[in-house]
Amino acid sequence: MASYKHFLIDKPLPYVAHVQINRPQKLNAFFDEMWLEFKVVFDTLSIDSDVRAIVLSGAGDRAFTAGLDVQKASQGGLLKQAADKTTDGARKAAVMKREIETFQSCIASVEKCEKPVICVLHGICFGLALDISTCADVRIASADAKMSIKEVDIGLAADIGTLTRMPKVVGSFSWVKEVALSARVFGAEEALRVGFVSQVKENKAKAMEAAMEMAALLASKSPVAVQSTKEILNHARDNTVASSLRYTGVWNSAALQTSDVERAMMSGIKKTRPTFEKL
Amino acid sequence: MASYKHFLIDKPLPYVAHVQINRPQKLNAFFDEMWLEFKVVFDTLSIDSDVRAIVLSGAGDRAFTAGLDVQKASQGGLLKQAADKTTDGARKAAVMKREIETFQSCIASVEKCEKPVICVLHGICFGLALDISTCADVRIASADAKMSIKEVDIGLAADIGTLTRMPKVVGSFSWVKEVALSARVFGAEEALRVGFVSQVKENKAKAMEAAMEMAALLASKSPVAVQSTKEILNHARDNTVASSLRYTGVWNSAALQTSDVERAMMSGIKKTRPTFEKL
Amino acid sequence: MASYKHFLIDKPLPYVAHVQINRPQKLNAFFDEMWLEFKVVFDTLSIDSDVRAIVLSGAGDRAFTAGLDVQKASQGGLLKQAADKTTDGARKAAVMKREIETFQSCIASVEKCEKPVICVLHGICFGLALDISTCADVRIASADAKMSIKEVDIGLAADIGTLTRMPKVVGSFSWVKEVALSARVFGAEEALRVGFVSQVKENKAKAMEAAMEMAALLASKSPVAVQSTKEILNHARDNTVASSLRYTGVWNSAALQTSDVERAMMSGIKKTRPTFEKL
Amino acid sequence: MASYKHFLIDKPLPYVAHVQINRPQKLNAFFDEMWLEFKVVFDTLSIDSDVRAIVLSGAGDRAFTAGLDVQKASQGGLLKQAADKTTDGARKAAVMKREIETFQSCIASVEKCEKPVICVLHGICFGLALDISTCADVRIASADAKMSIKEVDIGLAADIGTLTRMPKVVGSFSWVKEVALSARVFGAEEALRVGFVSQVKENKAKAMEAAMEMAALLASKSPVAVQSTKEILNHARDNTVASSLRYTGVWNSAALQTSDVERAMMSGIKKTRPTFEKL
Amino acid sequence: MASYKHFLIDKPLPYVAHVQINRPQKLNAFFDEMWLEFKVVFDTLSIDSDVRAIVLSGAGDRAFTAGLDVQKASQGGLLKQAADKTTDGARKAAVMKREIETFQSCIASVEKCEKPVICVLHGICFGLALDISTCADVRIASADAKMSIKEVDIGLAADIGTLTRMPKVVGSFSWVKEVALSARVFGAEEALRVGFVSQVKENKAKAMEAAMEMAALLASKSPVAVQSTKEILNHARDNTVASSLRYTGVWNSAALQTSDVERAMMSGIKKTRPTFEKL
Amino acid sequence: MASYKHFLIDKPLPYVAHVQINRPQKLNAFFDEMWLEFKVVFDTLSIDSDVRAIVLSGAGDRAFTAGLDVQKASQGGLLKQAADKTTDGARKAAVMKREIETFQSCIASVEKCEKPVICVLHGICFGLALDISTCADVRIASADAKMSIKEVDIGLAADIGTLTRMPKVVGSFSWVKEVALSARVFGAEEALRVGFVSQVKENKAKAMEAAMEMAALLASKSPVAVQSTKEILNHARDNTVASSLRYTGVWNSAALQTSDVERAMMSGIKKTRPTFEKL
Repeated sequence: MASYKHFLIDKPLPYVAHVQINRPQKLNAFFDEMWLEFKVVFDTLSIDSDVRAIVLSGAGDRAFTAGLDVQKASQGGLLKQAADKTTDGARKAAVMKREIETFQSCIASVEKCEKPVICVLHGICFGLALDISTCADVRIASADAKMSIKEVDIGLAADIGTLTRMPKVVGSFSWVKEVALSARVFGAEEALRVGFVSQVKENKAKAMEAAMEMAALLASKSPVAVQSTKEILNHARDNTVASSLRYTGVWNSAALQTSDVERAMMSGIKKTRPTFEKL
Repeated sequence: MASYKHFLIDKPLPYVAHVQINRPQKLNAFFDEMWLEFKVVFDTLSIDSDVRAIVLSGAGDRAFTAGLDVQKASQGGLLKQAADKTTDGARKAAVMKREIETFQSCIASVEKCEKPVICVLHGICFGLALDISTCADVRIASADAKMSIKEVDIGLAADIGTLTRMPKVVGSFSWVKEVALSARVFGAEEALRVGFVSQVKENKAKAMEAAMEMAALLASKSPVAVQSTKEILNHARDNTVASSLRYTGVWNSAALQTSDVERAMMSGIKKTRPTFEKL
Repeated sequence: MASYKHFLIDKPLPYVAHVQINRPQKLNAFFDEMWLEFKVVFDTLSIDSDVRAIVLSGAGDRAFTAGLDVQKASQGGLLKQAADKTTDGARKAAVMKREIETFQSCIASVEKCEKPVICVLHGICFGLALDISTCADVRIASADAKMSIKEVDIGLAADIGTLTRMPKVVGSFSWVKEVALSARVFGAEEALRVGFVSQVKENKAKAMEAAMEMAALLASKSPVAVQSTKEILNHARDNTVASSLRYTGVWNSAALQTSDVERAMMSGIKKTRPTFEKL
Repeated sequence: MASYKHFLIDKPLPYVAHVQINRPQKLNAFFDEMWLEFKVVFDTLSIDSDVRAIVLSGAGDRAFTAGLDVQKASQGGLLKQAADKTTDGARKAAVMKREIETFQSCIASVEKCEKPVICVLHGICFGLALDISTCADVRIASADAKMSIKEVDIGLAADIGTLTRMPKVVGSFSWVKEVALSARVFGAEEALRVGFVSQVKENKAKAMEAAMEMAALLASKSPVAVQSTKEILNHARDNTVASSLRYTGVWNSAALQTSDVERAMMSGIKKTRPTFEKL
Repeated sequence: MASYKHFLIDKPLPYVAHVQINRPQKLNAFFDEMWLEFKVVFDTLSIDSDVRAIVLSGAGDRAFTAGLDVQKASQGGLLKQAADKTTDGARKAAVMKREIETFQSCIASVEKCEKPVICVLHGICFGLALDISTCADVRIASADAKMSIKEVDIGLAADIGTLTRMPKVVGSFSWVKEVALSARVFGAEEALRVGFVSQVKENKAKAMEAAMEMAALLASKSPVAVQSTKEILNHARDNTVASSLRYTGVWNSAALQTSDVERAMMSGIKKTRPTFEKL
Repeated sequence: MASYKHFLIDKPLPYVAHVQINRPQKLNAFFDEMWLEFKVVFDTLSIDSDVRAIVLSGAGDRAFTAGLDVQKASQGGLLKQAADKTTDGARKAAVMKREIETFQSCIASVEKCEKPVICVLHGICFGLALDISTCADVRIASADAKMSIKEVDIGLAADIGTLTRMPKVVGSFSWVKEVALSARVFGAEEALRVGFVSQVKENKAKAMEAAMEMAALLASKSPVAVQSTKEILNHARDNTVASSLRYTGVWNSAALQTSDVERAMMSGIKKTRPTFEKL
C-alpha cells in the first residue's frame, strides 16, 4: 500500500485495509496538512480494487483523535492566516468559508469512499473524532472510549459535519441536542444504548478484532452488492422514499448485469466460497 | 372477503382484516405472480370501508417469508426472460428497470394502503420480508423470528425498498448499515432494542394475539382520525417540518369537518363506545 | 422578567429563564388566548440577551398540560365560531386552515426560539403536551409522567406538530406509529427507552433539578456556540447533508468572528470560568 | 396497433404512433371511462418497442379537447356518485381525493411514457387540454388554437396537473398566474411568445405535418439516446442540479453500454442512416 | 377600509382593494416603520372577505418606489442601531440576521396574501420595488417604468427576496444574472420580452386601468377557485410535480365541497352573472 | 497570470480575466487532459483576488468548441480504457460512473467559481459547448453561433450538465425538450428569443467587445456585492423560496459587515469611482 506522512496504511487481511491516524504523541490531533492527506488516503482506497473493506482507528492506546490541534490552529493554521489578512468582516467570512468547505470536503472523503468503512472509537474521541466517525458506515467502540462533541467548549459550533450528520445517525434528537449543546463527555455504553455505535468491546484490542472480523466478512461478499448497498443507503438518508426508489431502480438496472449474482447463488447452493472479479 | 390464489384473507374481528402470505410449503417465498396479486390485495383493502385495520402474517409456522423464490426467479422469472431478449447493456438495463419499478410498486401498496397495517414477523424473515415489513406501520415479532437483509448474499443490493425505508424506520444508522452490508441474521430481541419492532412475544401465536388486539383497538377508533394519522406520519417522514405542517393544515381543514369529532368527544364524556360512519 | 396572564416566568439562575404553564386548576389545559400568549413569551425570550437557556414546565404537580381545553374549544373557541359562520365546505376549510396555521405557528415559537429549551414532562402530558415538547430541544421526564398523543381519541389527527416532528425526534417509526395511531398512554421509562426523553428522574422536583442543572451548564457556555449549535441541528433535521454543510459553512463564516473562541480557549487553558458578551 | 373505444391509434410512419382523442361530436370532451382508457393507451405505447415517438392530437377540426364533459360529470360521474354517498365532510373529502388522484395518474401517463410525445394543439383547447399538453414533451400549435385554463370559470382550481406543471413549462410566472387566475383564452401566437409551444403553423394540417416530421426525426435517432434524454430532462425539472447530475451519472453508466453509440458514430462518419436495435 | 400612516387603501370597485405606497415626496422610499405597516396592510386584506383582488401601486407619478430610504437607513435605522451595539462579528451577524428576517417576512406578506395581487410598476422601481413586485402575482408596467436590482450599487446583494424569487419568476437565467450582477436599469419593453411583466401600457394611468380591469375580472370569479389557484401555483413553484399533485388533491378534496361549482356552472349555462358567498 | 497547456489566460482589463479554449486547429474540441486542466483554470481564478470578472471564449474564429473530441475519445480516452478492462456490466458501469462524475465536476468549476463568468458563444458550439455555457452566469452570442445539444446524434444523452441545467436556464420546457431530443442546430437569434443568451452581436469581435464591457462593469462594483449575488442566485435556483431566504439572511449577516457598503454609498453620493479591498 502507499505510504503517507500522517497515516499508517496496511492490509492485515485479504481485501481489507487498515488506516491509522498516526500522531499518537499528540493524541492523534489534526492540523491542516493532515486533513488534506486524509482525503488523499480515502480517495485512493475508494478506487483501489484490492480493497473491499476498511478499518479506521487511531495509532496508540490513548486516543482515536483528540480533534483539532488547537494550539497549532491558533498559531499558524490556514484559518488564522486567512483571518489575519483583512479586518473587513465580509472578506474574513469569505476566507473562512473557503477553509471550512475544504475541511468538510476532506473529512467527507470517508463517506464518499466507495468501500465500507468501519470506525473503531477508543480512548479520547473529541471534536473531529465525531465528524470523522459519523462519516463512517459502522462504528464499534472500545469500553474506554470517551466521546464528546467538544466544539461548544472552545466557543464554536461543530462545522465539519457532526451537527449535520448526527441527527441522521442517531434516532434520539433529545440526546443529540443534549450532548451537542453541552459538550458533555459520554461513554461507550451510552453510545451503544442510543445507537451511535453498533458494538462495545472491553478494550481497544478486542474492538479492533471485532472490526477486523466484520471487515473480513464484508470483504468476502460480492463487491458489487456491498458497494451498491453503501451507496443506496447513503442516498436514502438524504432523499424521499419515492426519489430513492427511483434511484435504486436505475442503479440496479446496471448493477444486476454482473456475474456476481450467479457466482453468489451457486456458492450458496454448493456451499463453496465464491470469488468475485475485482472492483 | 374476496378470495385470492396466493393469499388468505379473512375478517377475524369487526373491521379487522387478516392477510396471510399463503405458500407455506415454500416458506412463503414470492414469485412474479404473487407480488402482482399482493398489490391487488392491498389496493382492495385500502378502499374497503368494512376494514379499519389490517394484520399481515405468513401462513404456517416456519416463515413470514423466505423472500424471493430464487429458484423460480432464475428459471423463468420475468427478469430472466427480459434479460434474455438482448445482449445490449442499455436495453437490458431498460427492461430490468421496468421490472424493478413494478416490483417496488407492488410492495409499496402496503404503505399506500389507507388503513393501518400491523405486520407480524415470525420464523424466517429474509430479503423481501424486510421490504414488505418496512412498508407496514407497526411491526410485532415472535421470539423465533430470524431476520436478514439477505440480498448481499446473492450478489445484489436490496432494491424493493428495504434500503430506502430502513434508515427512516430505525434510528441507528450504524446498525442499519451493519446488517445491510453483512446480511447478518438478527433476532427479535435485537430488533426490539434498535426499534425495528415495537413488541416481541414468545411465539407466533402470542404475537398474532397482540397484533389482533392492537388491530381491534385501532378499529374501534374514529377511522377519519386513524387514517389521517397514518397519512400525515408518512408525509412527515419524507418532508421538512415546514412543508409537513402546511400539508397537515390543509388535510385537517377537510378532515375536521366530520361528525367523528363530536361522536368521539361525546363517547368520551358519556363513557360509551362510539360508532363511526364507514370510511 | 415580563409578567403574563397564563404563564409564570422567572429567572432562578443567572441567564436561565423558567417558564411555567400556569393554569394548574385545569391541568394546564390550553385555550386560544393561551397559545397566542405562549408565542409572545417565547418570541420575547428568544431575543432577551439576559437569557441563555430556558426550562419549560407546568405549574402544579398534576400535569405538564392535559392538552387542549376541549370544553372551551367546543363552546366558544375560534374554531367553533369560524365553522359556524358558513355551511359551505370550502369556506369552512379556509377558516379552519387559518386557525390551524396560527396555532401551529404559536407552538413552533419554542423551536424558533434562539435559546435552547429544556422541557420537563411530568404528570399528565396529553395531546398538545407532545406538540410543545417535540419543539423543545431536550426533554426530561419525571417518573410519574403519563404521555399520550391523545388526538385520535377525540376523532382527529394531531395537527399542531406532533405527527410532523415525532418521526424526526424518535428513531423507531414502528413505535411512533403505534402510539400515534392508538393514543395509548406511555410512561417515562418507555419514553427513555425509545429516545423521546434524555433522562428520567424519580419525581417532578428531581426532574426540575436536573433540568436546571443542565440549563445552568448551557448558560455557562459561549452563547454564540450554543445558539449556533441549536440552529445548525434544526437545519440539519430538515435538509440533506450537502445542503446542511453548505449552510453551516456560511453560518460559521460569521459566527467564528467572535471573541468567544479566544475567551473559551483561554479559560480552558487557564482553568478559569469564561465570561461572554451578551447575545 | 391495438384498438380502443375512445382513441384512434395508428402508425403513419415507421416507429411513429399517432394517438387521436376520438369523440369529435362532443369536442373530444372527456369522461371517466375515457381517462382510464387514456392511461392504457400511453402505458401500452410506453413499452411498445415498435414505437419511438408519439404524436397526440384531437380527432376532427374543431377541438383538441374541450376538457371535462361537465354535463356527464354533473349527472353521473364517479365524483358525483361518491359525493352522494355521505354528507360527512371528511368522508366526502376522502372519496374526492381518491378520484382526483386516479384522474391525475391517468393523465400523467403521457409524462411517464418512455417515448417522447409531441402534442398538437388545435381548435378548442380548454381545461383538461392543458393538463394533458403540459405532460407532453413538445407542443406545436395550429393558428386556430384557443387555449384556456378554464377551471376557474366552473368554480374550481385545476387539479389534474396544469397548475402543477405550467410554472415549470413556461418561464413567465406573471403570465402563468394571469391566465390561470382569469381563465382568459389565449391564442397560438401568445403561446409561442411565452414559450408554451415551440412552433405555430397556419392550420391543423400544417401543424400535424410539422409534428409528424419532428416525430420522424426523433424516431430515426438512437432510442437509447432519445429515451434517456426525456427521462433525464424530466428528472432535472424536479431536482437540484447536484442531485440530477448524480442521477444522470448512474443512468448513463448503464445506458452507455449500448451498441447505439458505435452505430451512431459510424453512421455519422460514413454518412449512412443508422439502424438501432428495438427498445 | 382601515386607514394607515404610509399607505392609502381604498375600494374603487366591488371586491377590489387598491393599495398605494404613500410617500411620494420621497419617491415612496421605505424605512423600518413602513415595512412593518406594509405587513399589517396585506395581512389584513388577506382575510378581509370583502376583498377578492388587490392592486398595488405607488402614489404619485414619479415612482412605484425608489427602494430603501438609504439616508434614513444609514442615520438611524434598526440595522444601524443594532450594528452599533457591539463590535463582535458574530453578535453583529446575529442582530443583522434578525433584522433581515423581519424585513423579508414583511415583504413576503404580499405572497402569503390569500387574495391575488396585481402590481403596477411605474416610474422609478429600484431595489425594494423588485423585492415587492416579485411577491405579487401579476405585474403590469407603465412604459415609463425604470427598473433596477439596484443593491449591488450600494455594496450588497439584494436580500429581501429579489434574488430568491426572480429566477422562478423569469425564465432566462442569463438575463436574471446580468441585471442582478450589474444593477443595470431596464425598461418596460425589456421586462415584457423576458416575461417579468405581463403587459405594458403607455403610461401609469393606462397601466392602472388595465390592472383595475383585471382585478375586476378576478373579483367576479369564484373566490374559492381564484384563491385556490393562487395557493396551488405558489406551492408548485417550490415543490416537485409529484409532491404538488399530492397537495393539490388534498386541497381540492375540501375546496370542491363548495356551492361555487354549481353556481358557476349554472351561470355559465344560463349566461347570468354568478354571485358567490364571501370568503 | 499562470500559463496553461490548453487554455490562454490573460488580463485585458483591470480585474478582468479572459480565458480562451486553445485548440483552434481542432475546433477547440476537448479530451480528458483538457477538462482536468479546465478545472484547474477556474478553481485558480475563483480565489484569485486580482480577478473580479471572467470572460470565456474559444480561440480562433471557427468555434467556441465542437465538443468532445470523439476520435480521441474512441481511441484512447479514459472511458474507453476503463470499459476495456472488464466485460462485467456492473463493473463497467462503476468505472463509467467515476469517469462521468469527474468530467461533470471539472465542467462545474465554472458554476462554482466565485467570480461571475461571461461566456461568448461563437461559431461551432456543439455538445460540451452547452454543458460549459449553461454553467456560466451570462451568455452572449455572436450572430454566427451554431448551437446544438449534439449528444443524441452520437447515441447518448448529454450527461455533463446540459440536460440538468438547461431547464433551469431557459423558461420554455417545450423548446428545451425539442432541441435536446432532436439535436437540432439553432442559431443566435433563436437563442436570444428563448432567453438562452442575453445579447446577440453581429460577429465574434463585437460579441467579445460586449462581453468585455460587461466584465469591466462588474469588475468596477463591490466584489462582496457581486460575488454574493452570484452565490445567492445559484442557491435560489436549487432551493425553495423559504430555504433560500433563510440562506440569504445568514449570508448577508456576514457580508454586510463590509466597508464596501459605505464606500459604494459614498461614491454614489459624491459621484466618484469607488475602490474596494481585494476579495
